[in-house]
Amino acid sequence: MEQFLAEAKAASRELALIGGAQKNAILRQMASALRGATMDILEANALDMKAAEENNLNSALKDRLLLDEKRIDAMAVAVEEIAALKEPVGRVLDGWVTDDGLKIEKVSIPIGVIGIIYESRPNVTSDTAALCFKSNNVCVLKGGKEAEHSNAVIAKVLQAVLKNNGLNEAVISLLPDATREGVAKLIRMDRYVDLIVPRGGEGLIRYVSENATVPVVKHDKGQCHTYIDRDADLQKAVRIAVNAKVDRPGVCNAMETLLVDRAVAAEALPQLKAAFDEAHTQLKGCGETREIIDVAEATEADFDTEYLANILNIRIVDGVGGAVGHIVRYGSGHSEAIVTENYSTAEYFLDAVDAAAVYVNASTRFTDGGAFGFGAEVGISTNKLHARGPMGIEGLTTYKFKIYGSGQIR
Amino acid sequence: MEQFLAEAKAASRELALIGGAQKNAILRQMASALRGATMDILEANALDMKAAEENNLNSALKDRLLLDEKRIDAMAVAVEEIAALKEPVGRVLDGWVTDDGLKIEKVSIPIGVIGIIYESRPNVTSDTAALCFKSNNVCVLKGGKEAEHSNAVIAKVLQAVLKNNGLNEAVISLLPDATREGVAKLIRMDRYVDLIVPRGGEGLIRYVSENATVPVVKHDKGQCHTYIDRDADLQKAVRIAVNAKVDRPGVCNAMETLLVDRAVAAEALPQLKAAFDEAHTQLKGCGETREIIDVAEATEADFDTEYLANILNIRIVDGVGGAVGHIVRYGSGHSEAIVTENYSTAEYFLDAVDAAAVYVNASTRFTDGGAFGFGAEVGISTNKLHARGPMGIEGLTTYKFKIYGSGQIR
Repeated sequence: MEQFLAEAKAASRELALIGGAQKNAILRQMASALRGATMDILEANALDMKAAEENNLNSALKDRLLLDEKRIDAMAVAVEEIAALKEPVGRVLDGWVTDDGLKIEKVSIPIGVIGIIYESRPNVTSDTAALCFKSNNVCVLKGGKEAEHSNAVIAKVLQAVLKNNGLNEAVISLLPDATREGVAKLIRMDRYVDLIVPRGGEGLIRYVSENATVPVVKHDKGQCHTYIDRDADLQKAVRIAVNAKVDRPGVCNAMETLLVDRAVAAEALPQLKAAFDEAHTQLKGCGETREIIDVAEATEADFDTEYLANILNIRIVDGVGGAVGHIVRYGSGHSEAIVTENYSTAEYFLDAVDAAAVYVNASTRFTDGGAFGFGAEVGISTNKLHARGPMGIEGLTTYKFKIYGSGQIR
Repeated sequence: MEQFLAEAKAASRELALIGGAQKNAILRQMASALRGATMDILEANALDMKAAEENNLNSALKDRLLLDEKRIDAMAVAVEEIAALKEPVGRVLDGWVTDDGLKIEKVSIPIGVIGIIYESRPNVTSDTAALCFKSNNVCVLKGGKEAEHSNAVIAKVLQAVLKNNGLNEAVISLLPDATREGVAKLIRMDRYVDLIVPRGGEGLIRYVSENATVPVVKHDKGQCHTYIDRDADLQKAVRIAVNAKVDRPGVCNAMETLLVDRAVAAEALPQLKAAFDEAHTQLKGCGETREIIDVAEATEADFDTEYLANILNIRIVDGVGGAVGHIVRYGSGHSEAIVTENYSTAEYFLDAVDAAAVYVNASTRFTDGGAFGFGAEVGISTNKLHARGPMGIEGLTTYKFKIYGSGQIR
């Protein structure tokens, strides 16, 4: 493993010097190669699907695992879209002349070697490899065991393109030891690995966070809230709340708990119940809520649960202060929204809530790289440092200071 | 400890909402209070100096520990200078309108609770507390045991000002359990602490990096190089090399190894030796170097050593490629310099060397917040992520996205 990662590190130094035209040409070749390898990929995927069948994976997991011609073409299109992104490396982020006459440029550069740990969907393999390649980073991929045959073929296709272009195949590789022990080694190899991005279940992310010596950008849970204020336009509020819950309940930017200002609860809750009933949402409420509408009881534990399903807690709170208090206690710093027409209340909420994305009068569902206009997305970071919230390809770069002198000494 | 840090976290939420005018007034009061407490601080410092005497601390350490009226006034001036810095929080770093009509602002915010672990110099206590306060961060300070009396009084003076202004004293506090076990707990309390900044010896930094679950911004070793290229102006080269080594050998941006292009070694080395002899630098050389000038032998281990003293390794390399190869192997990613008049060679070095600061024709000694024009300095980060190189007060902020909608749903 150490030898393998040392090679990855060495490859990252060569890769750092490759320019945009060459990178983009290679990415377009990768897209063609993926299309050309459709039959091989489908064959490998069939093996994974067979194993999934034998292991009784649930239908949602099987759907995420399944590839067909259309999905393979979509993978190729995604790689082409990444090729078309603006060059992320070499951007001059800042620049100035010091009192000593040194010209300083702060310039974006690749991070180096990035380890990415993910699950199920085989398209993450090509997406991630392409994003890392576009930003001159070497990637070490550790996909889910359930997708191992699919991932192996996809990686082989991409590596063949690297080789045809005279590049080191170590630029895109699968972690050779894909066991728990392999991951344990990977996340402590800070000598060779510059960043770990774990995407997956809470258990994995906790394990990586607690044991890594390599810096980690987590893609963690979203315990998101929407607060309906006394000065909300109730029609707007109902529409936003339903969308935040129902549009895609299984994703991290979906709402888990709806907070309702006591001052409008009696008016708002029946309208909300009607709308959520129509959307087949299972509602749970605090004691006060249940005095107004007939729903199940929401327990303390419920307020801490990311349902990832069409289930919603409702809690009555004492104005915006009560809403912020609840979010401080239960929020995961992902996405939080207020619905209000009151300027001061909106500004207070925006300032007081510490989350990657804080919304006024919009659904939390917009927290992603696509909706933010970042083009491709690495994921949604729940870190506070380096990258926070939707993480575009810029999140795969760091910077250095280039300093142009003319003989300066101190 | 957990209770203490939970209070610090709660205090960070209140502190986040305090504006610039109030912060700056409080900082100016802190400066006055430090001046007013001169006698108390000197008394406490005398206790620390007495213990230093008893423990046979060396004279350099004792000098770092010693306070006098002038140094206490300098601490107050530093706090006033921090008050005068541009407001670091609430800066709009970016902003745009999405296709959906959402107005997104990326805004700088405080990080939250920052744990800072440092040694010896008591002025770091007031400097760091002021920098954190100016950026609306709660700080938990863990100074060196040798300065415990001085640090305790300084913290008490600052806390009294907080209290007089109706603020929570938890905003600036010393870690209650300043033992190794206390530090071990602190660095794993990611629920309450958002960032750890260890400043000190290699052992401490390694320990923190390997055991923290809280994100760490390291202030680590500087294994810095200067490379004299075949196309260098030799007069300039000698001046830059001597400055990089001799100006302050004990700091992290001082040069440890000088790399000389074989093509100019015979001409350059005698001039270099004469200049370094005049500066009383102890020289060590590679085999080839020793064929040209009479110096001690530099071993493999020497090339890996941060001397922090007026000692220098010299190695002959095969052009800029050889220099980059040596730096890849031995550099710590801090500061690296080339001396050359050749445009292409300079640009190659700037691109190929991965370090926080890469110089052409200037001394590596310029890598600090002051020389970069950052005003106050938190330190010099050897991290690749979050903050790299000289870390100004901006390094104590992160960001969130504020999103202004008008009813958008997906």
